[in-house]
Amino acid sequence: MKKFNTAPISGMQELLPSMQARFNDYKTAVYETYLAHGYLDIETPTIERAEILLAKAGGETEKQIYKVVKTAELASEADQALRFDHTVPLARYVVEHANDLCFPFKVTQIGRNFRGERPQKGRFREFYQCDVDVIGWQTLPLAYDADVIATLADALKVLPIDKFQIRVSNRKILAGVLTALGLIAKQNEIFGVVDHIDKMSQHDWSEALREVVANDEKAEKLEKFVRENRGEWREISSRMTIAGTSDEWALYREGVSELGEVLDILDAALSPELRGRVEVIADMSIVRGLDYYTGTVFETVATDYREFGSLCSGGRYDSLASNYTEQSLPGVGGSIGLTRLFSVLKNYNLVSENITRPVDVCIVPVSDQEIMASLQLAERLRQKSKKVDVILTDKKLGDKMKYAAKVAKAAVVVGENEVAAGSYNIKNLESGETKLLEI
Amino acid sequence: MKKFNTAPISGMQELLPSMQARFNDYKTAVYETYLAHGYLDIETPTIERAEILLAKAGGETEKQIYKVVKTAELASEADQALRFDHTVPLARYVVEHANDLCFPFKVTQIGRNFRGERPQKGRFREFYQCDVDVIGWQTLPLAYDADVIATLADALKVLPIDKFQIRVSNRKILAGVLTALGLIAKQNEIFGVVDHIDKMSQHDWSEALREVVANDEKAEKLEKFVRENRGEWREISSRMTIAGTSDEWALYREGVSELGEVLDILDAALSPELRGRVEVIADMSIVRGLDYYTGTVFETVATDYREFGSLCSGGRYDSLASNYTEQSLPGVGGSIGLTRLFSVLKNYNLVSENITRPVDVCIVPVSDQEIMASLQLAERLRQKSKKVDVILTDKKLGDKMKYAAKVAKAAVVVGENEVAAGSYNIKNLESGETKLLEI
Repeated sequence: MKKFNTAPISGMQELLPSMQARFNDYKTAVYETYLAHGYLDIETPTIERAEILLAKAGGETEKQIYKVVKTAELASEADQALRFDHTVPLARYVVEHANDLCFPFKVTQIGRNFRGERPQKGRFREFYQCDVDVIGWQTLPLAYDADVIATLADALKVLPIDKFQIRVSNRKILAGVLTALGLIAKQNEIFGVVDHIDKMSQHDWSEALREVVANDEKAEKLEKFVRENRGEWREISSRMTIAGTSDEWALYREGVSELGEVLDILDAALSPELRGRVEVIADMSIVRGLDYYTGTVFETVATDYREFGSLCSGGRYDSLASNYTEQSLPGVGGSIGLTRLFSVLKNYNLVSENITRPVDVCIVPVSDQEIMASLQLAERLRQKSKKVDVILTDKKLGDKMKYAAKVAKAAVVVGENEVAAGSYNIKNLESGETKLLEI
Repeated sequence: MKKFNTAPISGMQELLPSMQARFNDYKTAVYETYLAHGYLDIETPTIERAEILLAKAGGETEKQIYKVVKTAELASEADQALRFDHTVPLARYVVEHANDLCFPFKVTQIGRNFRGERPQKGRFREFYQCDVDVIGWQTLPLAYDADVIATLADALKVLPIDKFQIRVSNRKILAGVLTALGLIAKQNEIFGVVDHIDKMSQHDWSEALREVVANDEKAEKLEKFVRENRGEWREISSRMTIAGTSDEWALYREGVSELGEVLDILDAALSPELRGRVEVIADMSIVRGLDYYTGTVFETVATDYREFGSLCSGGRYDSLASNYTEQSLPGVGGSIGLTRLFSVLKNYNLVSENITRPVDVCIVPVSDQEIMASLQLAERLRQKSKKVDVILTDKKLGDKMKYAAKVAKAAVVVGENEVAAGSYNIKNLESGETKLLEI
């Protein structure tokens, strides 16, 4: 007999029922927070035309994408692929259904995305992303950038992490600095290095910046600008707003003005519950990897667990739909990568070990004679919104009780006498306490 | 500029937010019913090794399966594929995690599956299946077959369909008849014809049966047996149990005895609420297409909409995991094909047209001056579990109210005077009634 490898493909999350229940708790809490902030739920298909997915994707994405082919068509090139994020399918959705939507379109998508990455700790090939996005028709006020960040921050509060730091910037600021320094042609390479400021030693980062800039004086200016401008906005904004008044600093000034507006509104939008847990800073090192961001960009770290990396991130994308339509559809969005985050929390033992048994009551017939009465009793308890399991095996009573203790919070033993009397005891399987069952 | 086709790939469900909300309502209600019956939730990956998926699949499945390849590997043959149902991955899951599970393992999986079918009305390439299954360790009492059917029937009650008919059989019965008639070698072809009894005219079906049996006398006996044995169990069981006492009828008798036991327990397990809506019949024409069923098989139709086809179906599979393990892991399960069902309900206008607006309160700042106060008011309402949207555009008040009326049940206008007084009116956007907002 052929033996198969029954482990899931590496890079795919697969949980036992008790852990799955915890994962679902977080996912549901995130989802409900998004709805509480007025976002509407949609689902786009898992499979999209490859040309749609790759229209704006960078080289790394193209390498990681899963193509999908029917067996018979394997020889020809695949023209369908699995989505790698929710944002690109959303742009297609909005163009396709524009006449039926209400703008600004506030939308949430929670689902599985796919990247064919080399599996490694904390990197998944299939993973849940929990997204919120707002898409405007022609225009979209900056206040929605704050709305997205405040919503994501509110969703993070369901996690077993006490304190967060939200780091916000605007790509126009650093692009403006590069413009003024005559370095804008190297924007992608320089952003790539700036992004790594917390992943490299101070010395290595300086060296890397010097190398990519290829001009020591300019590299030094750039380094100073980034290093000095990470912190509370009211502390750094005064010196940031006085720098550069000439024409070549126009983009820079636009970015600074936009960032100030977003941070002001964010301050008002944060829920009272969150104010003690969330610190918002401006951070000029934040640029985000994806090419489609055009303005606001943000990341979030756990204050006491910076090594977790970014818990959620996103930004403003003003021209994502430009390949599909001539309409201007500016958007802003962000996402919690729940699968990665859950895996990190598990590794740090932050997911409660006190596993909740998912079934409320397990009914234990003493013998097959009591199965019918047990099934009917179960139905009566379900009418009271209880989750009820009935043991239907013909095992010994002791074995049945062991099963009950694993899946349920309480047990009701149904024997000949109980059926005759129509009266049952319920045993709390956590405390051991027994009392009369009220039906 | 290149223009892309922004329609979803055909055969993929894509709904507008209001319809998505209805779909989600059904999905949640089905899920909660499954949990109420003591089933535990798990999720297996969307992508599995192709050898796992194809180990027991028939030819049709192999033709329809989607293979998954990374772009760089396109030339070589794909060894990963998208799951086409939940049952095969479940068999793998149980073998992989057997030491950590509690048997009988009662499990639900609700998620998306994939088949590369030619798209046609009511046929989807990506579709939600809502499954319940019970997997035993070595043995699994027949009572669990009844448990699965009763659970699925209970879940169907959330649908806007008044009456159901559950049709149950046991594959051993018809296989037993074929054994006694010396036709067992042709089982697959004969089952294929029997399955079509309601999809063909009486004459065409008789002809088809005669052709595949290739013996007029036996074909006639078989036809008579199937036609006569569709109806209430207590009416047909007496004549079914007396037919055939010789050794060659052993399999037949086993099937009849099993079916009787399952129907008896099912009768006790059906919820009181359901008794008026559900009719359970025994139906010897039910065989189900999938090869892996070994005993109980069932389908469900809407009594007043037989043209919908089967609403949910399933059966007993005693050796699905036999490719992966030498342990005997008998199982029984069934599934509601929610995407197909939802699409049929929509086509028949059975999904309520009275679309619920998903947001509870839309807050409408008169000008940008009131945005901060609006955001803070929104947070106070969210503390009371309300879903609250704040309009952040700088449109005219009339346009803002039109947006509010599309997404929300009620609106609160926040102007200069309201902010100064700290007192707000809430307008019910369905009735037009206005009253003081209690905060």
